[in-house]
Amino acid sequence: MHSLKRSLLALTVVMTGLSTTAQQTLNPTIERRVDALLRSMTLQEKVGQMAQVSIESLGTGEGNNFRFSEKMRDAVVNYKVGSILNNPGYPPTPDAWNRIVGEIQSAAAGTPRRIPVLYGLDDIHGANYVNGSTLFPQQIGQAATWNRELVRQAGVVTAYEGRAAGVPWTFSPVLDLGVNPLWPRLWEGFGEDPFLVSELGAAFVRGVQDPLGAKDKLIVSLKHYMAYSDPKSGKDRTDAWIPEHYLREYHLPAYVAAVKAGARNVMVNSALINGVPTHVNKQILTDILKGELGFTGFIVTDWQDIENVYRRDRMTNSIKEAIALAINAGNDMSMIPYDYKSFTTDLIALVKEGKVKQSRIDDAVRRILRVKMEIGLFEMPVTNVRDYPKFGGKEHAQIAYNTAAESMTLLKNERGTLPLRAGARVLVTGPNANSLRALNGGWTYTWQGERTDEIAAGRYHTIVDALREKMGAANVTHVPGVLYSKQGKYFEDSVVSIDAAVQAAAGADYVLLCIGENSYTETPGNTNDLNLSDNQLALARALQATGKPVVLILNEGRPRIISRIEPGAAAIVHTYLPGNYGADALVDILTGAVNPSGKLPITYPRYANDLAPYHHKPSEGATNPQGGETAPQFPFGFGLSYTQFTYSALRIGRTAYAPTDTLEVSVTVANTGGREGKEVVQLFVSDLVASLTPDITRLRGFEKIALRPGESRTVRFRLPVKALAFVGTDLRKHVEAGTFEVRVGGLKGTFSVGKDLVF
Amino acid sequence: MHSLKRSLLALTVVMTGLSTTAQQTLNPTIERRVDALLRSMTLQEKVGQMAQVSIESLGTGEGNNFRFSEKMRDAVVNYKVGSILNNPGYPPTPDAWNRIVGEIQSAAAGTPRRIPVLYGLDDIHGANYVNGSTLFPQQIGQAATWNRELVRQAGVVTAYEGRAAGVPWTFSPVLDLGVNPLWPRLWEGFGEDPFLVSELGAAFVRGVQDPLGAKDKLIVSLKHYMAYSDPKSGKDRTDAWIPEHYLREYHLPAYVAAVKAGARNVMVNSALINGVPTHVNKQILTDILKGELGFTGFIVTDWQDIENVYRRDRMTNSIKEAIALAINAGNDMSMIPYDYKSFTTDLIALVKEGKVKQSRIDDAVRRILRVKMEIGLFEMPVTNVRDYPKFGGKEHAQIAYNTAAESMTLLKNERGTLPLRAGARVLVTGPNANSLRALNGGWTYTWQGERTDEIAAGRYHTIVDALREKMGAANVTHVPGVLYSKQGKYFEDSVVSIDAAVQAAAGADYVLLCIGENSYTETPGNTNDLNLSDNQLALARALQATGKPVVLILNEGRPRIISRIEPGAAAIVHTYLPGNYGADALVDILTGAVNPSGKLPITYPRYANDLAPYHHKPSEGATNPQGGETAPQFPFGFGLSYTQFTYSALRIGRTAYAPTDTLEVSVTVANTGGREGKEVVQLFVSDLVASLTPDITRLRGFEKIALRPGESRTVRFRLPVKALAFVGTDLRKHVEAGTFEVRVGGLKGTFSVGKDLVF
Repeated sequence: MHSLKRSLLALTVVMTGLSTTAQQTLNPTIERRVDALLRSMTLQEKVGQMAQVSIESLGTGEGNNFRFSEKMRDAVVNYKVGSILNNPGYPPTPDAWNRIVGEIQSAAAGTPRRIPVLYGLDDIHGANYVNGSTLFPQQIGQAATWNRELVRQAGVVTAYEGRAAGVPWTFSPVLDLGVNPLWPRLWEGFGEDPFLVSELGAAFVRGVQDPLGAKDKLIVSLKHYMAYSDPKSGKDRTDAWIPEHYLREYHLPAYVAAVKAGARNVMVNSALINGVPTHVNKQILTDILKGELGFTGFIVTDWQDIENVYRRDRMTNSIKEAIALAINAGNDMSMIPYDYKSFTTDLIALVKEGKVKQSRIDDAVRRILRVKMEIGLFEMPVTNVRDYPKFGGKEHAQIAYNTAAESMTLLKNERGTLPLRAGARVLVTGPNANSLRALNGGWTYTWQGERTDEIAAGRYHTIVDALREKMGAANVTHVPGVLYSKQGKYFEDSVVSIDAAVQAAAGADYVLLCIGENSYTETPGNTNDLNLSDNQLALARALQATGKPVVLILNEGRPRIISRIEPGAAAIVHTYLPGNYGADALVDILTGAVNPSGKLPITYPRYANDLAPYHHKPSEGATNPQGGETAPQFPFGFGLSYTQFTYSALRIGRTAYAPTDTLEVSVTVANTGGREGKEVVQLFVSDLVASLTPDITRLRGFEKIALRPGESRTVRFRLPVKALAFVGTDLRKHVEAGTFEVRVGGLKGTFSVGKDLVF
Repeated sequence: MHSLKRSLLALTVVMTGLSTTAQQTLNPTIERRVDALLRSMTLQEKVGQMAQVSIESLGTGEGNNFRFSEKMRDAVVNYKVGSILNNPGYPPTPDAWNRIVGEIQSAAAGTPRRIPVLYGLDDIHGANYVNGSTLFPQQIGQAATWNRELVRQAGVVTAYEGRAAGVPWTFSPVLDLGVNPLWPRLWEGFGEDPFLVSELGAAFVRGVQDPLGAKDKLIVSLKHYMAYSDPKSGKDRTDAWIPEHYLREYHLPAYVAAVKAGARNVMVNSALINGVPTHVNKQILTDILKGELGFTGFIVTDWQDIENVYRRDRMTNSIKEAIALAINAGNDMSMIPYDYKSFTTDLIALVKEGKVKQSRIDDAVRRILRVKMEIGLFEMPVTNVRDYPKFGGKEHAQIAYNTAAESMTLLKNERGTLPLRAGARVLVTGPNANSLRALNGGWTYTWQGERTDEIAAGRYHTIVDALREKMGAANVTHVPGVLYSKQGKYFEDSVVSIDAAVQAAAGADYVLLCIGENSYTETPGNTNDLNLSDNQLALARALQATGKPVVLILNEGRPRIISRIEPGAAAIVHTYLPGNYGADALVDILTGAVNPSGKLPITYPRYANDLAPYHHKPSEGATNPQGGETAPQFPFGFGLSYTQFTYSALRIGRTAYAPTDTLEVSVTVANTGGREGKEVVQLFVSDLVASLTPDITRLRGFEKIALRPGESRTVRFRLPVKALAFVGTDLRKHVEAGTFEVRVGGLKGTFSVGKDLVF
């Protein structure tokens, strides 16, 4: 362990007296119950509460056939393990989950303190580890709706269906900022903008948790706290180089917003920041999260991450030393996930040796017990799916469909290629054309999502299925051209026959080319080259050479580079990872039944080595001859409609503000096209001069509105001038005197701030 | 300006009492002369010394035809400008340079203080702005020799030929760490390793400067201080995100070594670190460089960089405010480069307004005058080329050839493809086959090097020329296949005829495919995709399909991705940017007249989005399932020979050391092949466990040795255990108790350190 303690303290030196939020409020009745229970517990019982183990080590069989071995009783009864997680291979049905959770709680009920076990699952896009649940677009697609209410509803449905299975804790939402397109979990988040992620994250937290303790509610896990998403290498679980003022400027705000919204659990970034694994970073976990942000829930590690401090990061000489560092840094529960005996034995020894204080243990257990009580786990340790009649039903399916439909983003539409002409014949081709796996992405029934077609086939539509159903089978020809490997790595694809696809194009009015990526997540999803695969590029080039209008259907977790084939595309629709109702929504977009209204929540890069987000520095801008060049394929916030929206009358409340004032901006938006549609009105503000080189611009507000043809509406934004502050190298927030530029639609205006404010 | 001062001070808080080097020693006689002169000077005269202007604004015509206008006298006589830089378009001959510098010094001699003007030039690979000078491989190639003495000799020749022209100051060496292959100036540096850059940088400084004041010596400019080379965006002159302990771990050491070696000038990083333009970063310029490192020379800005704080980085409301920030941060001389009237007027006003202290001005001018005296500029303000008979002669050419020959790096040699069979017929093809421009790269006669073929044609050999001369014209067929654009951007190439190249291959025994990049530097050299161009890949694939053995000749400033064509290559030789004698050296390698001994000074990546240097963290290693994957095409330090070297008897002095001890490692290297050759013996040491996740390994020593067949030699390394320290987050150096692993050749050993040391 050497001088780690001192090193970490050095980081803490610069942390002074920031008070970003108020303390989360507590229920005095629950606090008294927690205190009483805590006083009655042995050290073994306390340490057990801090232990989380994975179900597959506690039994055999998968899905509904999963059966516990004696190890479950050993863990729960002998070692007092307080939490279990994970999917037993194949996803069980909700009643099988009721049985599984019930057996655990029966064992727990036989312990002296009768503390129920807290089960947790990765409900990443719906309750995806429960067979028959409603699967939503992945978060990147939810973000593309720019619709807070749809995101909240996704939270409501996820909570309902998760609790129907008896699992009261979801390891979501992901609040990681999607600023690095290489990172294999980009699609699990709400995009690249701190404000957008904050708004949608808070909406999701409210949907899942509120009101906390109700029988159809869960607790969230904000993850992965923090700055997991921008590793220097682009690879999962590697070191991020981020100075603290940038951590606070970009990565922290979404956590501030979600803690304010009441989040009860936070999961830690599996990687490292500036060489320090986040799991041993006391400044990040304790000083900022529990101190500054006033977070009163509990912190859980990610998978095996205390062990990783020893095995992967080579920072200790044993796992035991790593446990001491991690618990002392502020972790309350360890996702061990297997060796609960060593974890509890080591932690007890560390307390007895004085290397972990009893008070730290008590703090951790208090937080865990508090949350178990807040969600009513003592009163309702297991549920019965028959009390949840809406599970997997039409009402929920409609919400998932609505979300998918509003996520679809029309990126190009040359000469009105879309909607497709009625009665048209189409060739549908490409590796993503006939795959529920590709539509859903990772975290679907299994971790990597590789069994989706096996599990869900026939229950939901692939793109081919949906086209045949809505356009008539006779009008739809399917030739794959290129296919993904079924057994291999996600990035492996192979040519079936490009010639066959080219020949089939001859008989079609349109070519619908479905390209992108197969499913993946985490480390297996790393990429070495963001360019679209050579095989898919070859298929696209061959089809474009036929002269038929080619519509690119993008279905991918990351923005894969299409600059070589974009010029030859007549239209482009981005579907992200739209889930089980994604194909239905896509075909309604293609045929014109639904008017597209999605907007990119990320910058879509044009080149593999040109990956700056939209909120970059002036030096990184395309217009600066002494800087870099950034020319994205499609900019952040972009998306077309089948109708036309016209902006006018941009008004700023005043020409000059004090830094403590409220900025008011209004703009009138009219639907000047021929059909009903939805528009996302986006407010960008630029600080023109600042004492730390300013971002070229920042999103500071957005509203999604629906307008009929000829209708217009005035949209008003009100926000404190303080919301325009940046974090200085002194780690304080600064609003500085000077000129600010406002941009909404194509309109621009300016106002000034009269004096500096530091807070 | 707002709260910038406070923000920068926040960075300074963590800087405590580090003493990395001793103060550079000063000559008391010179100090007395400087003091006396300084006391006699007006503020206008002092501020003039701090001003550097570019020659093209002071006259008309290019090269030998350049003639000063009245502006030169205005600048030197009226505004007392102390320094002039740059090449008047076309490179003048040395006697024309003598005339140009002489006219300037005549003007200066007519001023009251008669202070000579300090002329500076970018002598980047030899005195490349002097017509007829000896051009060396660019620094990346010099580094590939791993030969300190050759690098020192390059410095000696550069100084001699630069001073022959009368220009006593070179803006070299580049000490920027080559850790980001996207960065367009990678090739201007000595590679990616802090130790290698430190060793070669110090050798070059000694070659150029020692003994300071001699008539064939210059002063160096260490550049670009510091961390210019690793921008987050990969683009030139953009923001780098680097925590301070990593700045000190990776980027600072080469500057420490070069300041210790006596460097008299430092040029500032044109970009930003953590949002702060280096030009206004007082901590970096004053506290670390002038304070900790004890640097007593002067600091010069880079091109227009004070103005960039205002125009590019939007941090002030005027250039005048930017001047105040930059001068107060520690810049001593501004490379303005044009508007000397405004600069001097603004700076005088700032002093009168109290915004820049007189003491800061005096400090800056003292440093500039000190260096002017140290190099004997007052005694010898201009030179006469006739006193420099070796200028551009055979002795210097031989040194440049030797450097090129030792830089060539054999990366693959399947079934002994090379050397070429005597009497063989070759097809030479590819855009780099017949171009002196491509062999030399940027900073060759002009900034972008685009006129090299026009200026140097017939004087030196292209690859085609050298092959014809050494193999006989009848055995050499040249078909370009693909050519670079002559007028366009560096990255533009076009297909001439791939079919013609394929047909020509039929009549050849070998195909020599010369690929890579055209010349560039700085911002125009930015790249968006590190993959080799589509046209060059297509040419390579077509030639590989012929079945003839294809030898890839790489000629490029950056490692362009060749993973799609590497499997089809029989042999690969990396030439870097070998200069005017590079083709001769290459052909001697190909024919076997010279045995290759170059080793990669950088990691050669396999994929465009997999760019970690060799000294990455364990989490980033290929073998860690919870980490990323790094699988370079060729590793740092790699290079083959035509003979065989066998390592044995790795011995470590002791099994256990105190942190204050000296580590001793010896190894025996034998030439077990059939011909004489040179080998670079590389010592790598890994700290197996550390309180900050350790680099997987680090280069800690190297020696290049020559061995005849059958000969063996024992190489001994001695280094303080303290040299193995890492910089902690507390910004101090740590050697920690524990086990270290030593690797030399394929051999491994371990030793332990008994206790912690912090210094």
